[in-house]
Amino acid sequence: MSAAGRGATGRFERVAVVGVGLIGGSFALALKAAKRCGRVTGIGRGAANLQLALERGIVDAIAQDVADADLVLVATPVAQFPAVFGAIAPRLKPSAIVTDAGSTKRDVVAAARAALGAKIAQFVPAHPIAGAEKSGATAASADLFHGRRVVLAPLPENPAASVQAVEDAWVACGARVSRMSAEEHDAVFAAVSHLPHLLAYALVNEFAGRANSAQLFGYAAGGFRDFTRIASSHPEMWRDICVANRGPLLAELDCYAEKLRALRPLLERGDGAALERLFAEARAARERWLSGEFE
Amino acid sequence: MSAAGRGATGRFERVAVVGVGLIGGSFALALKAAKRCGRVTGIGRGAANLQLALERGIVDAIAQDVADADLVLVATPVAQFPAVFGAIAPRLKPSAIVTDAGSTKRDVVAAARAALGAKIAQFVPAHPIAGAEKSGATAASADLFHGRRVVLAPLPENPAASVQAVEDAWVACGARVSRMSAEEHDAVFAAVSHLPHLLAYALVNEFAGRANSAQLFGYAAGGFRDFTRIASSHPEMWRDICVANRGPLLAELDCYAEKLRALRPLLERGDGAALERLFAEARAARERWLSGEFE
Repeated sequence: MSAAGRGATGRFERVAVVGVGLIGGSFALALKAAKRCGRVTGIGRGAANLQLALERGIVDAIAQDVADADLVLVATPVAQFPAVFGAIAPRLKPSAIVTDAGSTKRDVVAAARAALGAKIAQFVPAHPIAGAEKSGATAASADLFHGRRVVLAPLPENPAASVQAVEDAWVACGARVSRMSAEEHDAVFAAVSHLPHLLAYALVNEFAGRANSAQLFGYAAGGFRDFTRIASSHPEMWRDICVANRGPLLAELDCYAEKLRALRPLLERGDGAALERLFAEARAARERWLSGEFE
Repeated sequence: MSAAGRGATGRFERVAVVGVGLIGGSFALALKAAKRCGRVTGIGRGAANLQLALERGIVDAIAQDVADADLVLVATPVAQFPAVFGAIAPRLKPSAIVTDAGSTKRDVVAAARAALGAKIAQFVPAHPIAGAEKSGATAASADLFHGRRVVLAPLPENPAASVQAVEDAWVACGARVSRMSAEEHDAVFAAVSHLPHLLAYALVNEFAGRANSAQLFGYAAGGFRDFTRIASSHPEMWRDICVANRGPLLAELDCYAEKLRALRPLLERGDGAALERLFAEARAARERWLSGEFE
């Protein structure tokens, strides 16, 4: 790779992280630990968080601008993406690569197309899959992405070398990188991530609204705690994800409602054999998953 | 308390545990550790498991019979309860107390009434709420019930002293004991335990049956893992619980389906404010629960 600012090793001389939170901060730390970057600048709205990122050595400077960046990671909440893309569009170097860390991809691509215009080929959409119970630069760590998956959703306009450079950066962070279209990404994550969040929020909300909610929570135990852990996720973040990905999520919600409708008569007639088969199939699939069969 | 075999301290001279698994074995170990019992005998179908219980000092002898027992704990799978109650009914001492560890209560009470007849006053229904990922005497431990809840569902026929004696035994094991009717118990646990199990099994089963199931599991991460942990529970046990408690469970399933139906239009019209409110209410309730407000 010979583009200005990137050496043969996939090193980026100037990296700008927009939104230095758990994801953005961890990416900066991991790239630094892998010696794949030169100077990292942090850009964001939270002055205290940026100051902390500077003190922790996550970023080397606080900046207002991406004008000298060879790689820009947009890692703010997705709702801010249109504004962020709009702000960076006129400032990008022609050789710069922009990537992101958004949990949804079709809406991010649409926002990028709208703001970047002819520069859209410079944007390589990505989704690092890493937990978000903690947030902010204070939670960032160099090994957050070790063994985690990162999905790239390259655009037809992307030069192959740019996609490879983003892939190399994430591999250097310890991640397992794969590629799929934005549509496929959003369908897969509607199923395995967005739907479970919606289901967990709905269950806790249901019980919270009951007259005997104190009694119900009083007897809830470990199974309920794990089942609903994701209902402690950030409401704003999940509002944005659900709205952005509502098409595929509605399809998954309808599938699940249909599954429950199909299960109901088994319960109603006390069909123990059919219930046991359904449960055993689920357990077997989950055990295969835990054993690493699908990695 | 002056019944034969029970001292003023609530000590039981002869305890019989029918089904020396995680729950039965832990109860025996905890009672022994609290010096609340004399000799403990183990009764069950699994010879190897009973031998292990004997070697681990969980029980002092293997028995066929409860004829000399002052306290009998029935801790087999609930499906075996009718047979167990039938076997012990003719052998019970008049002063003996029988209790159980079943996850459902109305069906257990019905089975006990059918088998014990006039001796039903000797049966104090109970449900210790302790995880069951591990099983068998090998998993038993004296502190399994520390801080855990045990629900007693006393019958109108139970002498107050018998209910108190069972409560004292569980308190001696470190548990927090409360009382409610069998009907109330089954309604509460249909909501906070049985429904989440059904929902988790249904979700995993749904994805396991898809043409792209390997891809879906391949991208499932920590949120999915916790949400579906209870889908690794024992299919036979949960078949029995679901069938036994299908009335209240169907009512909960219908409530939940209605909740999802009500949520659907919010998603469809992209009503971010309403979704955020629903998510935030859920998170706030869960945080209050985690902080111990409902204990």
